[in-house]
Amino acid sequence: MSDAGLIVDETGCQRTLGYVLDVGQPDRRARCRMEVTEAHLNRHGVLHGGLVSLLLDSAMGATASLSIDPAGKAPFLTISITVQFLAPAGPGTVTAIGQVIGGGASLLFVEGVLTDAAGTTLATANGVFKRVPQRVLSENGAA
Amino acid sequence: MSDAGLIVDETGCQRTLGYVLDVGQPDRRARCRMEVTEAHLNRHGVLHGGLVSLLLDSAMGATASLSIDPAGKAPFLTISITVQFLAPAGPGTVTAIGQVIGGGASLLFVEGVLTDAAGTTLATANGVFKRVPQRVLSENGAA
Amino acid sequence: MSDAGLIVDETGCQRTLGYVLDVGQPDRRARCRMEVTEAHLNRHGVLHGGLVSLLLDSAMGATASLSIDPAGKAPFLTISITVQFLAPAGPGTVTAIGQVIGGGASLLFVEGVLTDAAGTTLATANGVFKRVPQRVLSENGAA
Amino acid sequence: MSDAGLIVDETGCQRTLGYVLDVGQPDRRARCRMEVTEAHLNRHGVLHGGLVSLLLDSAMGATASLSIDPAGKAPFLTISITVQFLAPAGPGTVTAIGQVIGGGASLLFVEGVLTDAAGTTLATANGVFKRVPQRVLSENGAA
Repeated sequence: MSDAGLIVDETGCQRTLGYVLDVGQPDRRARCRMEVTEAHLNRHGVLHGGLVSLLLDSAMGATASLSIDPAGKAPFLTISITVQFLAPAGPGTVTAIGQVIGGGASLLFVEGVLTDAAGTTLATANGVFKRVPQRVLSENGAA
Repeated sequence: MSDAGLIVDETGCQRTLGYVLDVGQPDRRARCRMEVTEAHLNRHGVLHGGLVSLLLDSAMGATASLSIDPAGKAPFLTISITVQFLAPAGPGTVTAIGQVIGGGASLLFVEGVLTDAAGTTLATANGVFKRVPQRVLSENGAA
Repeated sequence: MSDAGLIVDETGCQRTLGYVLDVGQPDRRARCRMEVTEAHLNRHGVLHGGLVSLLLDSAMGATASLSIDPAGKAPFLTISITVQFLAPAGPGTVTAIGQVIGGGASLLFVEGVLTDAAGTTLATANGVFKRVPQRVLSENGAA
Repeated sequence: MSDAGLIVDETGCQRTLGYVLDVGQPDRRARCRMEVTEAHLNRHGVLHGGLVSLLLDSAMGATASLSIDPAGKAPFLTISITVQFLAPAGPGTVTAIGQVIGGGASLLFVEGVLTDAAGTTLATANGVFKRVPQRVLSENGAA
């Protein structure tokens, strides 16, 4: 499903975790939202840090896509990502947002911030993303 | 459940994703294994990078715990983590393993490597983990 | 020398490289400026990436100090740092500036940005800094 | 000067700081050595963290070059680097060594370790390096 720029249930991972990808905002920065429930908590009773990374990675990758594709689907691979965990997140809605800060035709530098409903910054991230050449996709039978 | 050092279905996140944490090896390095299925794939048809981060983070955090607690449960918080994505992972078993490389009473530096069943390195990670003081746990009613 | 918040020639490293640390701005964000000359260039004829890291690290560490000490000298140790290299820097003035984005009594999360005289972003950084307890300094005979 | 795989005084930065690059070892892993003196110390009286980063970056970049050029001079750019500071370094000889852990025709993942004369690990690093296409060098008049 993709309605008004919202991408829902697109992949197995997305269906498993229930996050929503919003690639329809005029600032061309993707958002990745998730309602944190018991299904996402770690042994400390807060959102698992790996899922913090996942939401940031998803928002950042889709933001990279938006830089060349209004539909936010042009494939980019995450080359590396660094995440800083500023505060724990309990149940409730959290939103990751990406921003391209540099790069060129092949590599993009993207930042991300995860906040809770009150606007508190929970985590920040930085990553290098690589555009997947169409040639490679064809070879893999994906395009 | 915890049998012979295996931690299964301990948390909501673990039940949702189905990974197993092995904290019973004599080298005191935790393993985090997962059978990658369609439920973990991203839009490229491979294991979502966020889940790569999650498996590494889990193995590294548990390895930090093992440095002071044979049960691998002494709580450590991830302060920051960097993940390098070397190769994509398709369906099959993947295993993350941690290793403490330095640190002191409060902070630990931990490395992690994710490999597939054939032994191919899929990703590497480095992180800073902080021991949760018992005092803090008491204040939060967690201990 | 320290005049109007400027720290010059304080350490051997600073004298060797010639950067200036400005800890006197009202926003309590330290700046680290350097006039890039032939003495700082790498084999590509641009500012060595290690010196990019050094300027960012210096500005970020001093910004951490400013969070608790108006003189910007309270000692903080760099625990880890990640630097993204967005654009090369030729000769001319470059300035790194830090900003605390989170943390607590012991650890601080600090960001940094390096720009050239035209305002172009050359590099960004993120790091974890740890306050040096006075106790430790005493044991080492440093305080 | 380049004798028996040793690169000395090649660049302004190298002459300023006095490190030596060894690209002549049979394992094709570059070493970057420096005699730490008062000229490299920070306000804590130890090797400046930025110089730790610089030595690691230099060894890692030269190791990337060695993967395609026995002379260790094929140009690679540092895209991003993460450094973990495990222990402080006082005066004496320190050595950074690189190792390629993955990548392809354009990007390489490289690790680095900095040790002192006693073999103590002082810092570790991970980075993404990009091969500079010959085309780009020609356009810039560098080749």
